Amino acid sequence: MLDFLNSRRTIRRYTGRPIDPALLDRLLEAACRASNTGNMQAYSVVVTTDPAIKAALAPAHFNQPMVQAAPAVLTWCADYNRFSRWCECRRADACYDNFQSFMASAIDTLLAAQTFATAAEAEGLGICYLGTTTYNAGEIIDVLHLPRLVVPVTTITVGWPDEQPAQTDRLPLDATVHRDTYRDFTPGDIDRLYAAKESLPENRQFVLENGKETLAQVFTDVRYPRRNNEPFSDKFIAVLKQQGFLK
Amino acid sequence: MLDFLNSRRTIRRYTGRPIDPALLDRLLEAACRASNTGNMQAYSVVVTTDPAIKAALAPAHFNQPMVQAAPAVLTWCADYNRFSRWCECRRADACYDNFQSFMASAIDTLLAAQTFATAAEAEGLGICYLGTTTYNAGEIIDVLHLPRLVVPVTTITVGWPDEQPAQTDRLPLDATVHRDTYRDFTPGDIDRLYAAKESLPENRQFVLENGKETLAQVFTDVRYPRRNNEPFSDKFIAVLKQQGFLK
Repeated sequence: MLDFLNSRRTIRRYTGRPIDPALLDRLLEAACRASNTGNMQAYSVVVTTDPAIKAALAPAHFNQPMVQAAPAVLTWCADYNRFSRWCECRRADACYDNFQSFMASAIDTLLAAQTFATAAEAEGLGICYLGTTTYNAGEIIDVLHLPRLVVPVTTITVGWPDEQPAQTDRLPLDATVHRDTYRDFTPGDIDRLYAAKESLPENRQFVLENGKETLAQVFTDVRYPRRNNEPFSDKFIAVLKQQGFLK
Repeated sequence: MLDFLNSRRTIRRYTGRPIDPALLDRLLEAACRASNTGNMQAYSVVVTTDPAIKAALAPAHFNQPMVQAAPAVLTWCADYNRFSRWCECRRADACYDNFQSFMASAIDTLLAAQTFATAAEAEGLGICYLGTTTYNAGEIIDVLHLPRLVVPVTTITVGWPDEQPAQTDRLPLDATVHRDTYRDFTPGDIDRLYAAKESLPENRQFVLENGKETLAQVFTDVRYPRRNNEPFSDKFIAVLKQQGFLK
């Protein structure tokens, strides 16, 4: 298992072969075995295979080609709608229209999504997560007709791999793991932890191509800049309010 | 793999046997192979094995016995501190003090946490997630000395299993899976989807013990009531502001 998990890579190109619906259901069943808060299963997943609906979703994902090329697009949603409907049918006060409930359901959603991803990869499928989901959650809500108390938090495209890309790098373990309590980083720690990443030929090339001085500037000025982060923050907060999770 | 994922269960009782630190590192390395946003790895995990620090964490988790009984308590944190320190050392504008960046880092954190959980279970360890993490994030921040732009989103206790509990139920797949777009639930759908859960002897007993009319009322009145959800929402929003992720 560890060798399998350590050898994984994200797959963005898929063959035209569809995914057997019975296989997809088995993967989704395994996903539902993930831990979840109070066994409320406060999540849902919209499995989109209809080309017209995939095409309608594509702009929300900035037309990344995986959305229309993948045989299935899975939109994973924090969902207290179903649970609240159950409460309403059972004379119970559905009290999940608040931010804490959003966090609990988003956590449940992501544990199920990642279990699906692992299960899919174990069956030979390739997956790609789309971070655009929280940028344009409102547009996705419209396309998929998501009701109140349902908010998309991530999307997985899945299909049979048509590429075998090189594995991406990871930071040394002591960049992400702290022992007993958090110890903050000195400039010397930062130099040591980022040295290998900064020296990779593809990253040096990336800095040159973008006309920047440092790799960090490619992230802050080009890939994840303030001019995107701040408006997308406002958009997502507005979505949480619209869907009933935030006052 | 699917059989393995489908047979899992949460483990809350552990033997006294410690976890070999080398094994723990291998599990953490596998966790870091999970997908993440832009390969920024905007997460961290505090691995607490010191009994005194576990004891200090326990009240934040309402003294659930797993916290002190488990050989290791892993607090998984959304973390833009390390990345921002790198930016500062590299003349880049660290622009991740916003809610969108919190969401991206929380997502990355949870995918890594769940990969850790799967890896640990594959090696025969047992795990339990603690949803109390977002209730009392501020208290955890104090105990673990988490700096600005670091917020705990979940906790996993891990150890060698000292129980083999029955598997908990799950809703039928069509409760959580929607095809192409979301279709909302009628009262008839709710009756059908919740029938098996409501008829389980342990759930009938649970309703009786709590003096309630329905299982849903046990959730809304006892386990996850408004009187907890709303103050915990305010607390977590205050933590996001204090740690710099929300204006």
